[in-house]
Amino acid sequence: MELKARAPGKIILAGEHAVVHGSTAVAASVNLYTYVTLRFPTSDENDDSLKIQLKDMDLEFSWPIGRLEEGLPGFTSPVSSTPKSCLPESLKLIAALVEEKNIPEAKIGLAAGISAFLWLYVCIHGYKSATVIVTSELPLGSGLGSSAAICVALSATFLALSNSVNLDLSHQGWLSFSESELELVNKWAFEGEKIIHGKPSGIDNTVSTYGNMIKFRLGELTRLESTVPLKMLITNTKVGRNTKALVAGVAERTNRHPDAMASVFTAVDFISKELAELIQSPAADDLAITEKEEKLEELMEMNQGLLQSMGVSHASIETVLRTTLKYKLASKLTGAGGGGCVLTLLPTLLSHTVVDKVMAELETCGFQCLIAEIGGKGLEICFEGSS
Amino acid sequence: MELKARAPGKIILAGEHAVVHGSTAVAASVNLYTYVTLRFPTSDENDDSLKIQLKDMDLEFSWPIGRLEEGLPGFTSPVSSTPKSCLPESLKLIAALVEEKNIPEAKIGLAAGISAFLWLYVCIHGYKSATVIVTSELPLGSGLGSSAAICVALSATFLALSNSVNLDLSHQGWLSFSESELELVNKWAFEGEKIIHGKPSGIDNTVSTYGNMIKFRLGELTRLESTVPLKMLITNTKVGRNTKALVAGVAERTNRHPDAMASVFTAVDFISKELAELIQSPAADDLAITEKEEKLEELMEMNQGLLQSMGVSHASIETVLRTTLKYKLASKLTGAGGGGCVLTLLPTLLSHTVVDKVMAELETCGFQCLIAEIGGKGLEICFEGSS
Repeated sequence: MELKARAPGKIILAGEHAVVHGSTAVAASVNLYTYVTLRFPTSDENDDSLKIQLKDMDLEFSWPIGRLEEGLPGFTSPVSSTPKSCLPESLKLIAALVEEKNIPEAKIGLAAGISAFLWLYVCIHGYKSATVIVTSELPLGSGLGSSAAICVALSATFLALSNSVNLDLSHQGWLSFSESELELVNKWAFEGEKIIHGKPSGIDNTVSTYGNMIKFRLGELTRLESTVPLKMLITNTKVGRNTKALVAGVAERTNRHPDAMASVFTAVDFISKELAELIQSPAADDLAITEKEEKLEELMEMNQGLLQSMGVSHASIETVLRTTLKYKLASKLTGAGGGGCVLTLLPTLLSHTVVDKVMAELETCGFQCLIAEIGGKGLEICFEGSS
Repeated sequence: MELKARAPGKIILAGEHAVVHGSTAVAASVNLYTYVTLRFPTSDENDDSLKIQLKDMDLEFSWPIGRLEEGLPGFTSPVSSTPKSCLPESLKLIAALVEEKNIPEAKIGLAAGISAFLWLYVCIHGYKSATVIVTSELPLGSGLGSSAAICVALSATFLALSNSVNLDLSHQGWLSFSESELELVNKWAFEGEKIIHGKPSGIDNTVSTYGNMIKFRLGELTRLESTVPLKMLITNTKVGRNTKALVAGVAERTNRHPDAMASVFTAVDFISKELAELIQSPAADDLAITEKEEKLEELMEMNQGLLQSMGVSHASIETVLRTTLKYKLASKLTGAGGGGCVLTLLPTLLSHTVVDKVMAELETCGFQCLIAEIGGKGLEICFEGSS
């Protein structure tokens, strides 16, 4: 039995940082996916191990099933229908299993990702031999939700071949999960995210699972139905950031200038709410879409200014802004800032020539450019041979 | 009799644009001056005309006194002690006198400036022969208050040699006016500004007259006493702006997003108030000055972000920001935006090498760099030979 899941990355359309201080934020899926393939050995294969292949990094790690039983005991009757948190004692055992593999230290977050993989797999399938293959279109650690997409895709493939989920195995092509199945995948993925990030917000895995867009405020997530097909240029500045330091910096600035910053956060809150309404309102025709895009550009520009006033911009982000501004395109940083990725709305009626020129100019600066559709499908699965 | 006046330019430290929507703003003088020399012909000279020489433009215009008496009649008993508004019928007569001179059209605002000169002179001195020489360190039309500085310096020289002002003619070097004399100069300068700008705010002439800094909100001006010697790099992008269009653009954005923009303006109001307090609070030592400078930089960065969210930035401004950010220097646009000038705080402890590097890099972009001290003296006068 072999199957493949794909889970999308996410962008923050509005409200990053301010959300920590009580403002509304809006996140959306992007049609850049992480793919996970799960294969159980056939009865005539003699493979008695759990193997993970990270194709993009050209890395492979495997554990003999016996080593897993010994190193992480107690999963003889796996509990796939009830998402289970990895307690500190289990995490310690998993860390020992991961350490054996001498994971290159330069690959930041890799050990944590492998730990999440082991936890999800053993919880759902116990000590069963399998090969898991991961590939991704999402740049790692750039704020596009690559870790959540991996957790969602891993959970989905593991659950799809468990008793908790009922799928039509004869379906051709990509197949969606039911609402309740998605909920289960999302919860498991969140457990994986906790292993990777400690205290994730749950936004990344929710967007990756359900796709489309979500609005969130003070921990409450609301799914939105976008009526506008949006296309964004995502420019990865490749400048690494320290998200915790950036969040702390905004908090310190808020301590120093409480009144001014409170107004900045209020402004962001209004922008996020307006944006959420805008993307949900019906768009009758091309003209209406263009109008919506113009409003969206204005909201993005306003949000970017407010992010700059929070102090989370960076010279590399300024370079992207300056470059896209020359072509009259609106941009904003997405996620933590301080580098990372910048969004540029590509209006429906924008010529390809302009897009090519902007991308060429940005790539000359050493940035990576990705074009993505926003607010598309979430998690999907397909059975091998059918896609 | 010959004397010279110098009147400084101004910068907006915080609150431009938002001030139109009820927020506080702060302006300060810069030690870049416009100089006006006034000379009455001696009895043995046979010059029967009013002459103005614009040294920086290499232009000279003169009117025979007879032509002035005929073209702008009724000033036989000049009223220098009561500032007088130029009514539409007088303005029309002045326009005719100016038109005769075939002023180059490319020199925007020049005709209006000459009109203001004629009005101020004839009101204060009637039909008396004189030569007026104007030179300026302020780039014209770049938002640094060059027109107000001219009006202040013109009014000051004219009043200094009238009966309305009592000055010690034997004083050596630059001399200040008394409070009441400054008030008179300021009022006359405002009448000149009205001829040039239609509906000026009165901020530029007030800062140029009194120097130091002023806080203003809803038409109310408060003079501030700065305790910190501040140095700024002023980068003139040389990109011309349409101030009216920029102000209208912010108003339109406010109509489209009233709630978000109201919060943006509130944030600016808090920033201006905080800045005004900061520059007035005592600074005990170098450390305290450095701390103040850091706070000021943060407030400038916040204000700049908010200006960007109002949509009044420009690619040229972004270029300056990006360049100074590389050297960890804080910048903000000053005035209308959309080009114009950008301020960069030069902290007391910043090395000259860094300043030279930043300036060289900015000048490579085709910008003009000026270094100015902020919040210094206002209008001063000196009698020829004494300076």
